[in-house]
Amino acid sequence: MAHIRRLLLKCQTVPISTIQRMTANNVDQFREISTSREVWATTSQDEFTSSPVPVAEVKRYATDCMVSLGVKTDHASALADVLVAADYRGHYSHGLNRLEMYVQDISTKICDGNAIPTIEKDKYSTALVNGQNSLGPVVGNFCMNLAIEKAKKFGVGWVTANNSNHYGIAGWYSIMAANQGLMGLSFTSTSPLVAPSRAKKAALGTNPITLAAPALNGDQFVLDMATCTVAVGKIELQRRKGLPIPEGWAIDNDGKITTSADVAMKGCLMPLGGAEQTSGYKGYGLAALVEIFCGISAGATYGPNIRRWMDTKRKANLGQCFIAIDPECFAPGFETRMSDLMSYLRHMEPADPSKPVIVAGDPERAHMALVDSEGGIRYHVNQISASASLAQKLNVNQMEHIA
Amino acid sequence: MAHIRRLLLKCQTVPISTIQRMTANNVDQFREISTSREVWATTSQDEFTSSPVPVAEVKRYATDCMVSLGVKTDHASALADVLVAADYRGHYSHGLNRLEMYVQDISTKICDGNAIPTIEKDKYSTALVNGQNSLGPVVGNFCMNLAIEKAKKFGVGWVTANNSNHYGIAGWYSIMAANQGLMGLSFTSTSPLVAPSRAKKAALGTNPITLAAPALNGDQFVLDMATCTVAVGKIELQRRKGLPIPEGWAIDNDGKITTSADVAMKGCLMPLGGAEQTSGYKGYGLAALVEIFCGISAGATYGPNIRRWMDTKRKANLGQCFIAIDPECFAPGFETRMSDLMSYLRHMEPADPSKPVIVAGDPERAHMALVDSEGGIRYHVNQISASASLAQKLNVNQMEHIA
Ligand SMILES: NC(=O)c1ccc[n+]([C@@H]2O[C@H](COP(=O)([O-])OP(=O)(O)OC[C@H]3O[C@@H](n4cnc5c(N)ncnc54)[C@H](O)[C@@H]3O)[C@@H](O)[C@H]2O)c1
Ligand SMILES: NC(=O)c1ccc[n+]([C@@H]2O[C@H](COP(=O)([O-])OP(=O)(O)OC[C@H]3O[C@@H](n4cnc5c(N)ncnc54)[C@H](O)[C@@H]3O)[C@@H](O)[C@H]2O)c1
Repeated sequence: MAHIRRLLLKCQTVPISTIQRMTANNVDQFREISTSREVWATTSQDEFTSSPVPVAEVKRYATDCMVSLGVKTDHASALADVLVAADYRGHYSHGLNRLEMYVQDISTKICDGNAIPTIEKDKYSTALVNGQNSLGPVVGNFCMNLAIEKAKKFGVGWVTANNSNHYGIAGWYSIMAANQGLMGLSFTSTSPLVAPSRAKKAALGTNPITLAAPALNGDQFVLDMATCTVAVGKIELQRRKGLPIPEGWAIDNDGKITTSADVAMKGCLMPLGGAEQTSGYKGYGLAALVEIFCGISAGATYGPNIRRWMDTKRKANLGQCFIAIDPECFAPGFETRMSDLMSYLRHMEPADPSKPVIVAGDPERAHMALVDSEGGIRYHVNQISASASLAQKLNVNQMEHIA
Repeated sequence: MAHIRRLLLKCQTVPISTIQRMTANNVDQFREISTSREVWATTSQDEFTSSPVPVAEVKRYATDCMVSLGVKTDHASALADVLVAADYRGHYSHGLNRLEMYVQDISTKICDGNAIPTIEKDKYSTALVNGQNSLGPVVGNFCMNLAIEKAKKFGVGWVTANNSNHYGIAGWYSIMAANQGLMGLSFTSTSPLVAPSRAKKAALGTNPITLAAPALNGDQFVLDMATCTVAVGKIELQRRKGLPIPEGWAIDNDGKITTSADVAMKGCLMPLGGAEQTSGYKGYGLAALVEIFCGISAGATYGPNIRRWMDTKRKANLGQCFIAIDPECFAPGFETRMSDLMSYLRHMEPADPSKPVIVAGDPERAHMALVDSEGGIRYHVNQISASASLAQKLNVNQMEHIA
């Protein structure tokens, strides 16, 4: 498992002490902690392959796929890093599962795998970056590195990008900053899937918000959340299992809250908070905040103007926002206070003793520890066969499982 | 009604064109739009005085009360501005209703009405301010003015304060920035009332987040929201009326979701999103984000360490955060895109034709137009009598109603 340890160290998102503490307990407990993730929570373990794929091998495979299409190695590798991090963190909806989408964007030349982002405007703490229609993670890394540099010089770096593409899990970028002792934030606007409160149709995306902040000994607070109640994936899983969905997840075509997963799939997602009486308009407001920081600020597409999901007929021209802040500019002892608060929260008495109180980032950390303990990522059987056909199509080596 | 027009112009939060458009419709429609506000939504109009108090007269009264306790006129006036703005915007829970709390803080000398905040650390875009235990709005105005100055010079101003006190509606500060063509954000940590997901007890405050952003012709997007589902006030009103509360508002003492307003009053508030299956942990994460930007960054109290609500035995030492960003640092045409998005949203087809789709800030704008059309603020009868006794106690003139 040396490769995973290496990757772990590379990612620096998992303090080794935490993993040691966690692996001292048993795997079932990780599953328990990880209840927010679609996968363990809602599908049966039987659908997963018994033999995991080492994390480094997933990265090799994803990189090869992109390189086979003529994408520069470092760009292919940047994309692979973000996809692998998603699976590793337990957000399977944003990992390998999305590779075909990027493959299609590159094959159809709707996205330029080799373009280099450029700085269009620069002023102390701020910059406007033209993503030049490059891969989302290439734009994202460029912008967050710039924000980090600015934060170190001026206290804050606030960089917005236009002409970008889907950038994967938002947390990748905020964690880049936290790994350097900074607070990191990132936002992206996305294709319209969420209905504003009171509306019948979608006008805003699932628009994620992320904040990562460092604590002592490599521990981190990592909030990384879509501003809608749940992702489409969760509804799809309920449908597959013939189960209803809770109120607050989705509306039907007339704008009425539905508990039918079937109906929901043809309707719209609801903003965080759900119905108006449970303040769903706050989630709607947060989704709008993301549009304002992204497409509206950067002069990219925004809200209803963003291309439909999986549309490859026109460029995405997504707007994104990356912020880094140096806590040293404020009161000394930031990380100590972070650890104190996180420790207080993690030790609170839970309502249900089998569900410990956790903080943002813990479910993902638990999942990484699980992957680590198993020697790799165990994918859904469908994912494995889809990846095998893609490998064949692109003439690259299939992913190798641990024997 | 010249005084209101003047105040309106002063506040600059209501584009005159919008008011004109709104007042062209009738008062009932304002009430319709304003359904998110506790007052119109949940109490009967009968409990309100029929004769309104002019906005300028409310301000005169609140200022006099504070001055009578030895607070400098400009500090008293700063506090009065924020309280009056709350009532004017329809957030009665944060207006005159809170004056007695400030009076008590000053009388007991737990808060220093005359202290001047100082800058402890300064670096291009950032500053750490020691509020010197002054009134919250004095600290808030000081910090937001500093953030605005920095945003104009360096693109962003990010100012955190420790040693502050309750600062009223968060939106007051974000709007200060928006009135100067900037994006404004503000955050404050508050006394623990909200239970983290899975916990039995409260550990975080109602921790509001606000973003104000300018659009064309003085129109503004003003998101100003607590990160819990609803404020305590809404539960209290349901209890008074003997009605149940929706799931997702509150938990009982064992951490179970309750629909009894009685039980809820002894339990805890829930974070935005409610239960875990409707992603209440996202609201919990946002409340933690506010703690990180406020008390944790500024080295003030945070989370469970914050003094209990209405405790006047120890200083509040609240942490707060104020951010201003100059949209000119990004793509030209920010306000045009803002107006385009807001107009699109406001014209979406509503699920219920009697409830138009609106954007953040619209309910408050509608309420200001209502106050304007009535010539002043109509308070709850209990508020009027409480204010009369306070006036008597402090030996200041009572508020005069419009005859
Ligand atoms: N690029 C895009 O277009 C896009 C769009 C939407 C979402 N995403 C990504 O999808 C991923 C999943 O988003 P999501 O909203 O479904 O995430 P989620 O609901 O699984 O988790 C959201 C956050 O809550 C935390 N959390 C979960 N359970 C918790 C608990 N019980 N207590 C405390 N904290 C808890 C998690 O650590 C995480 O930070 C994210 O990485 C996001 O960036 C990307
Ligand atoms: N200083 C403190 O300690 C403190 C603590 C908590 C709250 N507050 C203040 O209390 C006030 C009320 O907070 P709240 O969370 O109860 O506000 P709220 O729920 O009434 O409104 C929240 C936001 O949603 C918007 N909104 C309402 N209905 C809408 C709809 N249908 N569509 C779109 N947008 C809509 C409003 O314009 C507002 O921006 C705020 O001013 C807040 O700053 C202060």
